[in-house]
Amino acid sequence: MASTMAAEKAPPEEAPGGWLDRIGERCRAEALDYVRARAAEHFSGRGEGELAETVIPEFVAGGKCLRPMFAYVGWLCGEPESDAALRAASSLELLHCFALAQDDVMDGSRFRRGRPALHVRFARWHAEQGWGGSSDRFGESAATLSGDLFLVWSERMLRECGLTAETLARGWPRYDLMRAELAVGQLADLVNDARSLPGWEELLDVLRRKSGNYTVRRPLEFGASLAGCGQDVLAALAEFGGLIGEAFQFRDDLLGVFGDPAVTGKPVGQDLRERKASSVVVLAAEMAAPRQRVELDELLALPVVGDDAVARWSELIVATGAHDRLGELIRERADKALAVIDPAVFPQHAADALSVLAARCTERDQ
Amino acid sequence: MASTMAAEKAPPEEAPGGWLDRIGERCRAEALDYVRARAAEHFSGRGEGELAETVIPEFVAGGKCLRPMFAYVGWLCGEPESDAALRAASSLELLHCFALAQDDVMDGSRFRRGRPALHVRFARWHAEQGWGGSSDRFGESAATLSGDLFLVWSERMLRECGLTAETLARGWPRYDLMRAELAVGQLADLVNDARSLPGWEELLDVLRRKSGNYTVRRPLEFGASLAGCGQDVLAALAEFGGLIGEAFQFRDDLLGVFGDPAVTGKPVGQDLRERKASSVVVLAAEMAAPRQRVELDELLALPVVGDDAVARWSELIVATGAHDRLGELIRERADKALAVIDPAVFPQHAADALSVLAARCTERDQ
Repeated sequence: MASTMAAEKAPPEEAPGGWLDRIGERCRAEALDYVRARAAEHFSGRGEGELAETVIPEFVAGGKCLRPMFAYVGWLCGEPESDAALRAASSLELLHCFALAQDDVMDGSRFRRGRPALHVRFARWHAEQGWGGSSDRFGESAATLSGDLFLVWSERMLRECGLTAETLARGWPRYDLMRAELAVGQLADLVNDARSLPGWEELLDVLRRKSGNYTVRRPLEFGASLAGCGQDVLAALAEFGGLIGEAFQFRDDLLGVFGDPAVTGKPVGQDLRERKASSVVVLAAEMAAPRQRVELDELLALPVVGDDAVARWSELIVATGAHDRLGELIRERADKALAVIDPAVFPQHAADALSVLAARCTERDQ
Repeated sequence: MASTMAAEKAPPEEAPGGWLDRIGERCRAEALDYVRARAAEHFSGRGEGELAETVIPEFVAGGKCLRPMFAYVGWLCGEPESDAALRAASSLELLHCFALAQDDVMDGSRFRRGRPALHVRFARWHAEQGWGGSSDRFGESAATLSGDLFLVWSERMLRECGLTAETLARGWPRYDLMRAELAVGQLADLVNDARSLPGWEELLDVLRRKSGNYTVRRPLEFGASLAGCGQDVLAALAEFGGLIGEAFQFRDDLLGVFGDPAVTGKPVGQDLRERKASSVVVLAAEMAAPRQRVELDELLALPVVGDDAVARWSELIVATGAHDRLGELIRERADKALAVIDPAVFPQHAADALSVLAARCTERDQ
């Protein structure tokens, strides 16, 4: 049985940041090895296979492995280090690849991690072959199918990670919830896009159901469930994860408007160009004085949001105070989250890792 | 341990056709119940949820449950009747729903089972709401996400079917293969579409990898693996399944050109309008006299295949002898498949069921 109080192994002696970086690298290597093996199994010796065998692993290699790191730290809240648990955690990176590949098709996003999105890469390959038919259409279909493979491989990687069936049985409910929430959340997002700008509370509700839970809370709960942690640990991780997940998304939304393209890999003001109902956009609308609100509504109604509109919209967001207020909300959530991690309940190295990850999620510039 | 020689329960006393119909109905009910429960769990009380809670189960309810029937008959080759095994078999219907929902998006097919395709239904709903944005785009994304949910729910339904972990462990490799083959096969199909008309052998190779294996062989092997059948049974089912799967696809291709729209639920000559490189189209090109071939190439090169072109193309297919020849190939394969089922190895009721299913797959008119 798993202890919920402390891991049986001494905490690593190096600084938690460096140790976490190594965990992230190992997770990436596990996910990459698994995908390479599956791609070789299914595509070997076929025309489109050459493409799949290079493009699909490249896509996996570009990830930050944030979700696997949270899952593995969740595991360490109740159990000592384990290669099998690390593989289980790494399966979440493939789940993330599924979501990214298909969301970029649906959202029409042409860039991902500073490089062309997966569907754009497939479309270019199709165009280079000089075949008939729409290259864009081919690219979208091929990226959707790659996403399906990532979804299947993630589950299979988890099932084959080396943990016992009993241990895995503790993790499946959270894993299933996470997978379903991803698809249901993206569907809600599509409906949300189609409606007028949501209110702040409505937006928070969508965030909690979608990215907030998915990025931090569910991975932590998943890892801790696998480790057999008790209700006290799970409840604390749920609260910590909800707060940091929300702060993560707020930071993401600030970067989507004010981020440096050289660092984020996305064009300036990308979220504004896409008219995304992001937290900073919604908050600005709520905080705007009547005249500012009129101007924001005009910008929202533009058929195309060009460079001038992006510049003006960004100025308005600062002028309403929404930029600074969102920064405060991020810090409030980060502080509240850290206070939840009771040193009497959490092993020291897990608490340290949570603290480092919280900082990385909320203070990042990409 | 499972017996590979005969089930422990007496064969059902009614005619195998009626018994199979009841199995099909039970599989449909199991898949439908499972999907209704999941949809209620995830969508309850939300705007788009009303839609999902009706459209998603309706889509499942329209299926013929051919793959679950094959899987269950595979199980009966080694084990007696079992509700848990029936649920395991039924999970393949959800896998099929995943494939249909997403393939119709990729192929731009607007009809499925005589009704609007899933993406068309979602698009209509979006248009009825009077929202901004492209309704077609919304429909495609919503259908893709529904497909993702079917993919997730299929695996979860299998895992939760009530068979022991040891029994399930025998089935996972075939299940995983089937899922991956579906996505990889669809990718090969997209590449195939983009190329010029394939030769007959190349076409058979694609068929075997895609629909042939998927519809008959893999479900049979999956069910028989779960039941712990030995290599003799598995090898015979593989051969039977390969032959019937191919004949099934040939019949499908004949119906795609010559089927009665009132029965198939698809427009006349649908496959010709889509310029699908189907078996009957490829065979006609191979069997055509030089002058016929010139005319076929002209039809293949038309920017739009209208009613007149469909009529002329159909006549040409008959004139080349391809229509009759494909009918012979179907009968040859059906006869060869039935000869593989050795009464000394297979329980009587399983052999009877295989015989009925073979006839249904090869002689059907829809």
